[in-house]
Amino acid sequence: MSTFIHEDMLLQNDFGKMLFHQHAQKMPIIDYHCHLDPKEIYEDKKFRNIVDVWLSGDHYKWRLMRANGVTEDYITGNQPDFAKFQKWAEVVEILLGNPLYHWTHFELKRYFGIDELLGPKTAKMIYTEVNRQLSGLSARKLIELSGIETICTTDDPTDDLQWHALLKKDPKMKTRVLPAFRPDKGLNIELPDFLNWVHSLASIVGYPIENLKTFEQALFDRVKYFHELGCRLSDHALDYVSLEKAGAEEVGLIFERALRKESLSRSEIRKYKGYILVFLGRLYHQYGWVQQYHIGALRNTSTRMYEKLGPDTGFDAINDISFAYPLSELLDSLDQTGELPKTILYTLNPRDFEVAITLMQAFQGDGIPGKIQFGSPWWFLDTMDGMRKHFKALGNNGLLARFIGMLTDSRSFLSYPRHEYFRRVLCDFIGEEVVRGHFPKDETLLGKMVEDICYNNAKKYFML
Amino acid sequence: MSTFIHEDMLLQNDFGKMLFHQHAQKMPIIDYHCHLDPKEIYEDKKFRNIVDVWLSGDHYKWRLMRANGVTEDYITGNQPDFAKFQKWAEVVEILLGNPLYHWTHFELKRYFGIDELLGPKTAKMIYTEVNRQLSGLSARKLIELSGIETICTTDDPTDDLQWHALLKKDPKMKTRVLPAFRPDKGLNIELPDFLNWVHSLASIVGYPIENLKTFEQALFDRVKYFHELGCRLSDHALDYVSLEKAGAEEVGLIFERALRKESLSRSEIRKYKGYILVFLGRLYHQYGWVQQYHIGALRNTSTRMYEKLGPDTGFDAINDISFAYPLSELLDSLDQTGELPKTILYTLNPRDFEVAITLMQAFQGDGIPGKIQFGSPWWFLDTMDGMRKHFKALGNNGLLARFIGMLTDSRSFLSYPRHEYFRRVLCDFIGEEVVRGHFPKDETLLGKMVEDICYNNAKKYFML
Amino acid sequence: MSTFIHEDMLLQNDFGKMLFHQHAQKMPIIDYHCHLDPKEIYEDKKFRNIVDVWLSGDHYKWRLMRANGVTEDYITGNQPDFAKFQKWAEVVEILLGNPLYHWTHFELKRYFGIDELLGPKTAKMIYTEVNRQLSGLSARKLIELSGIETICTTDDPTDDLQWHALLKKDPKMKTRVLPAFRPDKGLNIELPDFLNWVHSLASIVGYPIENLKTFEQALFDRVKYFHELGCRLSDHALDYVSLEKAGAEEVGLIFERALRKESLSRSEIRKYKGYILVFLGRLYHQYGWVQQYHIGALRNTSTRMYEKLGPDTGFDAINDISFAYPLSELLDSLDQTGELPKTILYTLNPRDFEVAITLMQAFQGDGIPGKIQFGSPWWFLDTMDGMRKHFKALGNNGLLARFIGMLTDSRSFLSYPRHEYFRRVLCDFIGEEVVRGHFPKDETLLGKMVEDICYNNAKKYFML
Repeated sequence: MSTFIHEDMLLQNDFGKMLFHQHAQKMPIIDYHCHLDPKEIYEDKKFRNIVDVWLSGDHYKWRLMRANGVTEDYITGNQPDFAKFQKWAEVVEILLGNPLYHWTHFELKRYFGIDELLGPKTAKMIYTEVNRQLSGLSARKLIELSGIETICTTDDPTDDLQWHALLKKDPKMKTRVLPAFRPDKGLNIELPDFLNWVHSLASIVGYPIENLKTFEQALFDRVKYFHELGCRLSDHALDYVSLEKAGAEEVGLIFERALRKESLSRSEIRKYKGYILVFLGRLYHQYGWVQQYHIGALRNTSTRMYEKLGPDTGFDAINDISFAYPLSELLDSLDQTGELPKTILYTLNPRDFEVAITLMQAFQGDGIPGKIQFGSPWWFLDTMDGMRKHFKALGNNGLLARFIGMLTDSRSFLSYPRHEYFRRVLCDFIGEEVVRGHFPKDETLLGKMVEDICYNNAKKYFML
Repeated sequence: MSTFIHEDMLLQNDFGKMLFHQHAQKMPIIDYHCHLDPKEIYEDKKFRNIVDVWLSGDHYKWRLMRANGVTEDYITGNQPDFAKFQKWAEVVEILLGNPLYHWTHFELKRYFGIDELLGPKTAKMIYTEVNRQLSGLSARKLIELSGIETICTTDDPTDDLQWHALLKKDPKMKTRVLPAFRPDKGLNIELPDFLNWVHSLASIVGYPIENLKTFEQALFDRVKYFHELGCRLSDHALDYVSLEKAGAEEVGLIFERALRKESLSRSEIRKYKGYILVFLGRLYHQYGWVQQYHIGALRNTSTRMYEKLGPDTGFDAINDISFAYPLSELLDSLDQTGELPKTILYTLNPRDFEVAITLMQAFQGDGIPGKIQFGSPWWFLDTMDGMRKHFKALGNNGLLARFIGMLTDSRSFLSYPRHEYFRRVLCDFIGEEVVRGHFPKDETLLGKMVEDICYNNAKKYFML
Repeated sequence: MSTFIHEDMLLQNDFGKMLFHQHAQKMPIIDYHCHLDPKEIYEDKKFRNIVDVWLSGDHYKWRLMRANGVTEDYITGNQPDFAKFQKWAEVVEILLGNPLYHWTHFELKRYFGIDELLGPKTAKMIYTEVNRQLSGLSARKLIELSGIETICTTDDPTDDLQWHALLKKDPKMKTRVLPAFRPDKGLNIELPDFLNWVHSLASIVGYPIENLKTFEQALFDRVKYFHELGCRLSDHALDYVSLEKAGAEEVGLIFERALRKESLSRSEIRKYKGYILVFLGRLYHQYGWVQQYHIGALRNTSTRMYEKLGPDTGFDAINDISFAYPLSELLDSLDQTGELPKTILYTLNPRDFEVAITLMQAFQGDGIPGKIQFGSPWWFLDTMDGMRKHFKALGNNGLLARFIGMLTDSRSFLSYPRHEYFRRVLCDFIGEEVVRGHFPKDETLLGKMVEDICYNNAKKYFML
């Protein structure tokens, strides 16, 4: 009897099986975008139990529990850990069609050797067994088990990166852990948090920020500092891409008005954001960094739950606003002076793949293979269907062979089988194209293509 | 030789065949949204001939006839019935790829035992044979033949529901026929018909409606009356979801201006609609009803044909406007006070499935499994491809196992094989996932999932 | 060993193979929309080498070269021809998933009998062999080899059509070459080129154009002249479909202001364009022409490269703006007076297929089978996936059997295997539906359907 997660899981054809087992499986992992906590890595966090590592911070699971009629006390409330786990097990049993059905069973298999399907009847046994094994595990051991070469976390410019500095000097740490620069709070001039953030920035750079010029200087200083600690990429949440052009003088006045807590018009906000995105893009270009644009989330839709639980708690959705023209203008602004850095575009709405890919192709160049990338399926799209759609759309209008591949985007130390999942889907996809005669049956060619997408392309792209 | 509609039609794999024959086929039908006429049911309508029951009111077929070069006299005009049928048969012969090709042959097979494919050569024979059999059939007999447990019609709040009251008391009626509340005319304050509708409403509740407060009282009274006659769901056509927030006082003035036939600004219209949708949503929540939002139709595009034939005559299309943010605001308005009722979201544009599903998931909760539903593929999407896309999209970001399944949305007594069609596509889809190893090969689990989607989920959801 | 381009390439099932070999392959080609140069056809152009015929004008290839890190000097610059070819060969080797991988190898096989896959190692050999054969070929010989019955080029209204006139009289020319009417420059009243274009128009009609009335007269005269030379279709790039209604008087003043080089408001521009599109649509209707609307391109996104290379050089993308309502208004404007001509709608964003198809279906009629057409997948969508999506979407909501089929839209004399490619994909698609039992296994019916889509439908539709 074969178990659910067997060695050829997700592989429907012989060529795909060969590609996975001979070429994909062996490649190290570069997880160039995730939300792991460098402190937990440095301190080698131990986990209370499976609920601690699996359920307590995972809003993907929370949404599904709510949808199954689980009440909030079993999700974010005070019910006992096993009771919460039992509720989650009830969800998993009927989670057919959802990527978490596969992720869950891959994680149970890969980290804990469990073959049983999780459900109400197996919940107790699995809970006990996983907790038993977890007592011998920790953040670093899970990373080691996962075969990861490089991890890029997500860090605020005002972060002092102390854990990164310590990790860098730690001879026992074999996986390279690098910071990534996420200055969203410095872009969101319209949020109440903005002034505090500017003060934190002033405090970390050690001089007052009283105008746009010193603000730019501070951003520059932080990019430089991040770079010294190995940072090679930045990240921007572009929920809306609606920007307006404005010069330094005008934006300087807008910035100073914000410092004086005066309220800004929508147009002023757009001008500020457009200007700063271009300023930062040029900075990234100067340092050879890659910038990431995450486009199209609609966040915190439930006021009631936002007030109760805050952001990133499962109340987000895919937005449906147009972005082609404003994004083309943003890229063009950087391109005009030859300062467009390497850029990864992620779109959250699957209907926008072709828009993003054709726009990306309009800004390729500079002699850099795959300079502009269409990012791996993100968040709600991180599914088998999302990946296949991505491979097809990218192939149809771009160079699939230059794709830099998968990342976890995860907060969890157990999420690394998602790379395996991606690789299986990729190999199955390519194998199927061979079976249909669309790709030549050439192991040398396609084995290399698989190895490149799984590892080599990212290695070169991020200059790691 | 196997006929076109054979016992394994649409079922490509053994597991799917088993699921259909052992689990789907036997389940009763709950048709929770359709446009059957309760009067025709109560009076047990007899049909003049196949044209009367099939062609005379079916704008799906009219569109296809026009596209085949059939002139209007054979569609909505005065040509003899058989001549019209002959023209339709010419369309059917080449209708490959269209769901009506399958619906047509399922209906001929299931109600009349006809195996021949409809086409110009078989038209005469089929016309004669169907008409012969139809003379022994009637509305109630067709319902009986279809294995329907419950039918929910679509009714205006000003309807006195006399036929529903009679059906309720009729001991010979085994299928339960319930009204559903569709107050579109009370929302469309900008249409010339609005004042007449308010007068009808005043007339049915028996008191004058001179301000917003009495209007609200009247809506409340009608919801109460509908509830007493078994109504458990409402329905709204949200062609546009662009609403503005406003309080009772402001909307009261807008309503009174409308009563005085003063023209309203676009902003005022949006404020009125937003306010009334929230008012009604709270009312539905109070009664434990389900509300349905039908989003995204572009109606009556041809002025010339609208003036000739009126609405619902085949001149509609799918619209492409954004709705994520305004819809999230509407749901949030109801959610803030804990009064968001169970809601079914239907989107007419297939590119919006993921938007609607992720937004739906952001408003799940209240301890109700599948409280917010993503409705069965609607109108232009009621196709095999639409269903498969629906299963995939719902599975990827929600709980497919909690889906309340199919409805006909039809005006025809012959449309019930659409439930069979849906069930076959569902079983084929699940079977295929088993064959690919994506779902475990577990009849107990998947048989229950199929039975739930076909019947049990709707039964519980609507508390029938 | 079978070669990559073998006789059953892209055909996965026996019924599809039969359809292709027995029914599709033999049909002549009507290439009703392309960008071949009638002068090059008349003068029977000879080609310097494969770079001249393949790379020098093909921005599809340029984009992919840029994405592979090829620098501009090897693309549009002064590097030697073979060096450029070598760079292209490096791209082709890894171009898996892209339609150009298939097009390239079909073209090498069909025109030059080459079975090797193009790549860095075969580049020299293929370059030499193709150039050798090319020395015996020419524009007319390539057309002859391709089995083309009719070619419709794309011509400006101010063109004197001298080459078309010569081709018409040339007894050696067996393929019919007809002009098509593309008046974009006369619509784009906001561009600096507009006045020059009006002057060219005045010059070709031989009278001054000083007001809207004489402008209309001139357009009428050109349509008449094009018609005499066999023109049967027009073409419009509707990058944006946002029009406003206005009468002749108002538009007359707008036109005169443009003549005086006064700047126009966005609203005035929309009014002018809406008015002229309706004016031209009525003219086309009068002449029995077909009008083509190409909707949704975002052009010339890179200012830097536009200034260097001009338009149509690979810096375009798919746009994502809404068009359903404004397009319905445009069609309705023509329909209201019964003057809507036969129309082909092309949408560049694949997410818009269902919108365009359902809107198309709302304007069918006049007793013309398939009067409004949903155009063959265009530009970025001219892929296997685009075609399959097109067949499915058209089948689901329209009459696939009435589809007028493929066109090249190409500037190259080597692009005709795209028709073969399309036919293979079509036959494979239909064959697959037969295998699944969705279509009846009826060669007479489906063979005719294939022949109609490949040739007969276009022949009747364009009255050729």
